[in-house]
Amino acid sequence: MKFIDELKLLKEQLRFKEAIEVPEGTQNVVIAGMGGSGIAGKIFSEFYSKKPVFIADDYHLPDFVSKSTLLIGISYSGNTEETISTVKEGIKKGARIATIGTGGELEKYGEQHIKIPVKGIQPRSATGWMLMPLLNGFGVVAPAEVDEAYGLVDELDRNNSACLDVAREIASGDHIPVIYGSAPFKTVAYRWKMQFNENAKVIAYPASFPELNHSDTMALSKTYRKENLYFLVFGSKSKKISRRIEVTARITGSRFRIIPPKGTTDFARMFHLFHYGDYLSYHLSTIRGVDPMDISLIEELKANLK
Amino acid sequence: MKFIDELKLLKEQLRFKEAIEVPEGTQNVVIAGMGGSGIAGKIFSEFYSKKPVFIADDYHLPDFVSKSTLLIGISYSGNTEETISTVKEGIKKGARIATIGTGGELEKYGEQHIKIPVKGIQPRSATGWMLMPLLNGFGVVAPAEVDEAYGLVDELDRNNSACLDVAREIASGDHIPVIYGSAPFKTVAYRWKMQFNENAKVIAYPASFPELNHSDTMALSKTYRKENLYFLVFGSKSKKISRRIEVTARITGSRFRIIPPKGTTDFARMFHLFHYGDYLSYHLSTIRGVDPMDISLIEELKANLK
Repeated sequence: MKFIDELKLLKEQLRFKEAIEVPEGTQNVVIAGMGGSGIAGKIFSEFYSKKPVFIADDYHLPDFVSKSTLLIGISYSGNTEETISTVKEGIKKGARIATIGTGGELEKYGEQHIKIPVKGIQPRSATGWMLMPLLNGFGVVAPAEVDEAYGLVDELDRNNSACLDVAREIASGDHIPVIYGSAPFKTVAYRWKMQFNENAKVIAYPASFPELNHSDTMALSKTYRKENLYFLVFGSKSKKISRRIEVTARITGSRFRIIPPKGTTDFARMFHLFHYGDYLSYHLSTIRGVDPMDISLIEELKANLK
Repeated sequence: MKFIDELKLLKEQLRFKEAIEVPEGTQNVVIAGMGGSGIAGKIFSEFYSKKPVFIADDYHLPDFVSKSTLLIGISYSGNTEETISTVKEGIKKGARIATIGTGGELEKYGEQHIKIPVKGIQPRSATGWMLMPLLNGFGVVAPAEVDEAYGLVDELDRNNSACLDVAREIASGDHIPVIYGSAPFKTVAYRWKMQFNENAKVIAYPASFPELNHSDTMALSKTYRKENLYFLVFGSKSKKISRRIEVTARITGSRFRIIPPKGTTDFARMFHLFHYGDYLSYHLSTIRGVDPMDISLIEELKANLK
């Protein structure tokens, strides 16, 4: 499958009906996953907070994990070293275990295992299959929101020339993309960073309003190399955040390329922004003449760690 | 007070005896704080996880906050907009409230208020006074660890020429500092970024092992502008992480400047690294001829948001 065809798998993923079953007595939720497989848990935690949700993107679990913890291990391959390590720790601590993936070692461990129906693509092209079972299981998303998101994702699949325009601008100056998100799209800013890294093979850095105002503001005004950065800033429906964006740009003399999220619900807006970054990074890979599917060094790294 | 004298306040802060009182029945902890005042909660959450600890660095609290939540609002000035907003939400939800600061509006809200003894310095120079009451209250740190950290911080106060050497290298190429941390020093990497931003007025970006291996690896090999970056990488006592650092540098052809943490305990190592970044960013400000105390635009921003 070509990478562009992988991107077109997203919209059907939104209609994935599988749902994590939440055991009675669950007091907190830990979601373990790395990189492209970690994104799902991070997005979920911006949409659900009725119980404490903790993201584990390392080898170990927090100490509070117990029998009343639902530990959800997510790994597309099912063989991610860190995720296997945390799930094994969770079993020792008596946590209830669910897993999401295409198989691999991880599949052996869950009381519940949700199987991703398509094998052999890039893990980061399978985010919908990892995210929807979380949202479905915790009852976070309504069918009408899914329909709206489906429409917006489909629209981008048909016409993403705006993304191409931005990619050209970034490429024209060998710019470093800096992506500024805000709630509930902070993870999407991180997703864009990852897509720039893995698809276009360029470094990129995410940050979020309002926290970045407490550190970056002075640097934005006086740093060297500002002309080497390209600021991609997600529009916000929050008046406070919109005002921060506008004032920050003005007083620091920064050129912010605002990406206005489309859609009437946060869920639809999230997936529109998400997919916008997919095409933007894809176009940048094409302009640069690099293969978005090449992850040879990540494979080499894994082989070297064994 | 000169900024260099503010830096020398750190070691005495380690001996700050105040302690957050943890109410009986506390099931989870939320720590609200932004920027220099938010760092304390973020470091704490790397050292304590017996109960779920959630960091709130935005206007709103997670939905799970209830009567069994201990909400700790931290703001040096006591007037940080986002922190005031979350504490007010916490009161409505019936959370138990504690606050740490020098006064301001925040002081009015806590059942407990811990007063920082020195007013009028940069919030980021007061981290010890914000962090120690958390660690003391939850019983995380032993007196011998404090003594060891005190010694290492004092050593850096007396001789920080190694930091000056690194600052000169960074300045020589107008390099963008990229700081790679790993547990339990991920927050320290973020702290370095903030100190580069606010003291030296240069942009800087943090990331952490092992998560960065799942995204940055390909970009580190093939990106443009890599020669404009300067990689500061914290050494690790974990064999797995050390191996990742070594292999990543080798297969991506990257020059990593390893900063080996000194000390025998994680607490002491953390503060050694923390303070190393203080001096590194301070020296860079001096070389660049910028005032590390100048936060005029952050003040202008706040005035514009009113």
